[in-house]
Amino acid sequence: MRKIFHRLLKPDEVVRIVAERVSPIGVEKVDLLNALGRILASDIEAKTDSPPFDRSLVDGYAVKAEDVYQADESTPVELKLVGCVEIGEAPKIELKRGECAEIATGAPIPPGANAVVMIEYTKRINDRVRFFRGVRPGENIGQTGSDITAGDIVMKGGRKLTAREIAALAALGYLEVEVYKRPRVALFSIGRELVSPSSKLEYGKIYDVNSYSINAMLKELGFESHFLGILPDDREAIYQNLSKALEEYDVVVTSGSTSAGLGDVVYQVFENLGEVLVHGIRVKPGKPTVIAISRNGKLMIGLPGFPLSSMMIFISIIRPLLLKMLGLKEKIERSSISAKLPFRIDAGGKTHMIPVQLVETSSGVSAYPKFSDSGSTSTLLESDGFITIPEEKQYLDEGEIVEVTLFGELKPPSVYIIGSHCPGIDVLLDLAEIADAKIINVGSFAGWMALKRGEADIAGTHLLDEETGRYNVHMPARLGIESEVEVYGGYIREIGFIVSPGNPKKINGFKDLLRDDVIFVNRVKGSGIRTFIDIQLKKLGVKEPEKEIKGYTYQARTHTAVAAAVAHGRADVGVGVGYVAKFYGLEFIPLAEERYDFAVRKDRASKPSVRKIIATLGSRKFAEEIRKMPCYKIHEKTGRRIFP
Amino acid sequence: MRKIFHRLLKPDEVVRIVAERVSPIGVEKVDLLNALGRILASDIEAKTDSPPFDRSLVDGYAVKAEDVYQADESTPVELKLVGCVEIGEAPKIELKRGECAEIATGAPIPPGANAVVMIEYTKRINDRVRFFRGVRPGENIGQTGSDITAGDIVMKGGRKLTAREIAALAALGYLEVEVYKRPRVALFSIGRELVSPSSKLEYGKIYDVNSYSINAMLKELGFESHFLGILPDDREAIYQNLSKALEEYDVVVTSGSTSAGLGDVVYQVFENLGEVLVHGIRVKPGKPTVIAISRNGKLMIGLPGFPLSSMMIFISIIRPLLLKMLGLKEKIERSSISAKLPFRIDAGGKTHMIPVQLVETSSGVSAYPKFSDSGSTSTLLESDGFITIPEEKQYLDEGEIVEVTLFGELKPPSVYIIGSHCPGIDVLLDLAEIADAKIINVGSFAGWMALKRGEADIAGTHLLDEETGRYNVHMPARLGIESEVEVYGGYIREIGFIVSPGNPKKINGFKDLLRDDVIFVNRVKGSGIRTFIDIQLKKLGVKEPEKEIKGYTYQARTHTAVAAAVAHGRADVGVGVGYVAKFYGLEFIPLAEERYDFAVRKDRASKPSVRKIIATLGSRKFAEEIRKMPCYKIHEKTGRRIFP
Repeated sequence: MRKIFHRLLKPDEVVRIVAERVSPIGVEKVDLLNALGRILASDIEAKTDSPPFDRSLVDGYAVKAEDVYQADESTPVELKLVGCVEIGEAPKIELKRGECAEIATGAPIPPGANAVVMIEYTKRINDRVRFFRGVRPGENIGQTGSDITAGDIVMKGGRKLTAREIAALAALGYLEVEVYKRPRVALFSIGRELVSPSSKLEYGKIYDVNSYSINAMLKELGFESHFLGILPDDREAIYQNLSKALEEYDVVVTSGSTSAGLGDVVYQVFENLGEVLVHGIRVKPGKPTVIAISRNGKLMIGLPGFPLSSMMIFISIIRPLLLKMLGLKEKIERSSISAKLPFRIDAGGKTHMIPVQLVETSSGVSAYPKFSDSGSTSTLLESDGFITIPEEKQYLDEGEIVEVTLFGELKPPSVYIIGSHCPGIDVLLDLAEIADAKIINVGSFAGWMALKRGEADIAGTHLLDEETGRYNVHMPARLGIESEVEVYGGYIREIGFIVSPGNPKKINGFKDLLRDDVIFVNRVKGSGIRTFIDIQLKKLGVKEPEKEIKGYTYQARTHTAVAAAVAHGRADVGVGVGYVAKFYGLEFIPLAEERYDFAVRKDRASKPSVRKIIATLGSRKFAEEIRKMPCYKIHEKTGRRIFP
Repeated sequence: MRKIFHRLLKPDEVVRIVAERVSPIGVEKVDLLNALGRILASDIEAKTDSPPFDRSLVDGYAVKAEDVYQADESTPVELKLVGCVEIGEAPKIELKRGECAEIATGAPIPPGANAVVMIEYTKRINDRVRFFRGVRPGENIGQTGSDITAGDIVMKGGRKLTAREIAALAALGYLEVEVYKRPRVALFSIGRELVSPSSKLEYGKIYDVNSYSINAMLKELGFESHFLGILPDDREAIYQNLSKALEEYDVVVTSGSTSAGLGDVVYQVFENLGEVLVHGIRVKPGKPTVIAISRNGKLMIGLPGFPLSSMMIFISIIRPLLLKMLGLKEKIERSSISAKLPFRIDAGGKTHMIPVQLVETSSGVSAYPKFSDSGSTSTLLESDGFITIPEEKQYLDEGEIVEVTLFGELKPPSVYIIGSHCPGIDVLLDLAEIADAKIINVGSFAGWMALKRGEADIAGTHLLDEETGRYNVHMPARLGIESEVEVYGGYIREIGFIVSPGNPKKINGFKDLLRDDVIFVNRVKGSGIRTFIDIQLKKLGVKEPEKEIKGYTYQARTHTAVAAAVAHGRADVGVGVGYVAKFYGLEFIPLAEERYDFAVRKDRASKPSVRKIIATLGSRKFAEEIRKMPCYKIHEKTGRRIFP
């Protein structure tokens, strides 16, 4: 039973239509100690003046300004000290002409005084004080109400309470404030393929992700979120659970099972429970989103099932609606940032949302689109936000400035290392005490290209120049970036076959990969190892490796992943560095030695993180650690500049 | 007993010295539903592949690619439909040559199939399916481990868990994660002048602010904060309370009473309880900060008493130490932003921290320093962050780019209205439904200057041209900004004396302000009303109004504040618009009529907020609301452009 979506709405139409139907659910009083993040529900009027009395702004002596009017270094004035004004108490003295009183910062000005002289410009001699500087009337006095006058409206309702607002409310004598109630949300995941992350994963099942990501996003906004479980794609079960939740909660959010291709159960249940406002959005991904208002006036939201889709729909469409429900009337946080698009993207026909990875380049921040299926976990982890291309635009051009909606707090890495994957980088970063590097494993050549474009600070590389037999130093000239980069010597590593202990399948060379009883684990295109593999297969005369080698299309992104595939029995053999074989207790059959070096952009050489990494590369400690790694060697140029 | 501080340290020395002594207090496991904001304590390895099985990326039909290889629009291929693969179940069918199976997005690829054709390119006819497009082997299949391979290290310890990380952890099958324990903090305020914001304020007392602001900042960071009360400046009482707190809590934070001028009790107690690492910082404000480690290894922090000082010290010096204790190893959030300094600031001798207000100008963001005493509540509310001038710098120059450390979430207002205070602006904004305007009341002339400098979008103004008798339209020429601004007609308002009902002091003219039994409430310098007042007093021949008029130095910032001062009995008379007198139930003695208009920068006229305000100004609804306000009138030019 495939159901056709009702008229698909544009994302901004969705927000406009639903916003008219949602509003805050009520107000309550909270103690200031628990008010962080809450939204003020009413205007705040200053009940008292601030400061509440004339007070001294300095440590010194309260005086009548006219008494010390003409005092200076050469003609000081002496006054009689008649006492001390204590902090926190009404002054017990009143100054007469020729008198002064000791006073600390914050203490009330005694009657008769109209200025304070800082202690630095005085000298006390027994019960007399000598003044070396004059003051104007009012000097060094914080006057009653000069900061805030009783009756001022100091905050409007709808303002979010951060530490600043809370400080001001305390200063104004508000221990309790009226805030909007936090809406309570019931959260369900729907889909027979879903199991809890605590369970063992049976074939065909996947872990429920949305309950956790949506729960976190709701909490970030200030909602009370309650995950009520995974439901099967069963109309009756969904109806029963949602009906019950609508009695107790202010909002019901489901994810999954919203596709018209799946019987459209969520839409049907929403329609039975109230009025469906939105059934399908003209956006990709996220089309099968359903929004309704229940008969008792509660908001019901049905999000798509793929985690990335549901996050992007939540942030771009649901969040503005929920913020209205929270009562927020100001823009908060920088939830988006401008960035440059490094290449053209074609779109059109509907709104497109595309995850991007932000990279700081020499000419500002660039937003690199990540094209992957919406079920991708790595895209969740590696992308910083997404761009939205309205349906009217057929494409976004290279170099265009785009607005990136952030997934959350921006986490700018201290260094970008893009290129070939190597466990040696982890050793280097651990010794350099850098935990927040962004390491993007795309292979040596792509690393050099990223360096050229200014995305990478450092590229890890092992590219052989077949003409000279040397590694890496030929690349700057080949890419025409001789003046922009330096290359530092890294280390030598052995690569070879990784097989199970005892080499049960008797792998001796690449020809064995063609055997029917052998399953191979490949590396991703563009990696040095993949190039090495493909050259060897070509030498053997293999024309269609996808068909001739089992597992050839299974592409691991890292050396570690190759070893894991062999260790876990998913493959019989792969090619990688010897180190990971030993690490996983596997057998290693050496095939070649190669040099792994580090190319660095000159214009980043002054970054503290880059400086630390280069210094560490040349350190004795690093040499020691590399020597400890099986199949790794340092050489005479380790840590030294080898280009130019 | 005045005590001299030990060697004062520079702020960065303080952070370096103390950081060596703090580290996370331990680890614990938390459920993923409660993991938001926590810091991951160990590396996360992928336990399973993602996706965990080969799955379809589209709705369509699973096929052997070789069967449909040559299919196209003109020569479709037909295959036999042998079944349907259900989502969430192991496939029960195996494809043979010439067969296909229905498959939904996310369902496992059945044995024998090696590609999926999207439903759009097929036509089903009973138990046969016609294919109008071919596929490559592997097309539309998400391969096992192609996203993340088992064994990959996907997250490093020290990473903050936001919605994204939580989503990835769920996808990887982690229902529980190991995070660093949240340190528990005991919080005290010290000072005999402090009372709880719930109390009535006796003379000389002020409300305790720091407990609330520091509590909020600790919670924002992810600490568990417990406010344990206000203590007197009494060594024994402080010692007893702190000793007890050190047994139960991981950190003790006090504020207030740290000044050497106050007997230095906090330093003495810290010294009795452990080792003092820092006694005084070479920074202004914030010098009297004390940091120590107790004998049982707990961190003790003594912050200064003034709220603004303690907030700036907390953010710049204490926060980095606390983040280390939390185990955070990545940079998070944009806690600072670059801005331009609009004028030179002199400093030097020690590090200076100066609160600033961020203003978007035509040439980027400007940081306007707010010079006020550290006890100021309005500075807390109105400043967005602070700049730090290291002691080596004697000054920061006009136009210099400075880094502004933010007090918290940035809240960019939708419109800046700078100039003369008028209750009519509130009516205008309410009707235009703008709740997040930044209204800065500095008086008409300063408003024009802010407009000229590009800080204000709109300036509210009532400046009389004495030559022509006209209001406001002479200003563009006078400032040489004829081509940059437009002026829109506002309304007419009556100004006069505001006195108590029945005019008990019989105020009839400005000469009455000179009477000994009359207390006046003045307006701030630069306001139109103040100029009016001073002109009238000059006509009377008053030379030294500070001395001749009681209350002349008491300067209210708004009309409302003038009325409040009279209503609360702090003053007998002030000058303001009639509207506020009526609002407070006071008596109004008219003195003059004036025109209040709105000057708008042309380059901001396209801002949605500005457009809305101008449109509202010309609306019938606005005219109706203004007519309802006592002593306000619209005129024939209300809402219309009167310049140029």
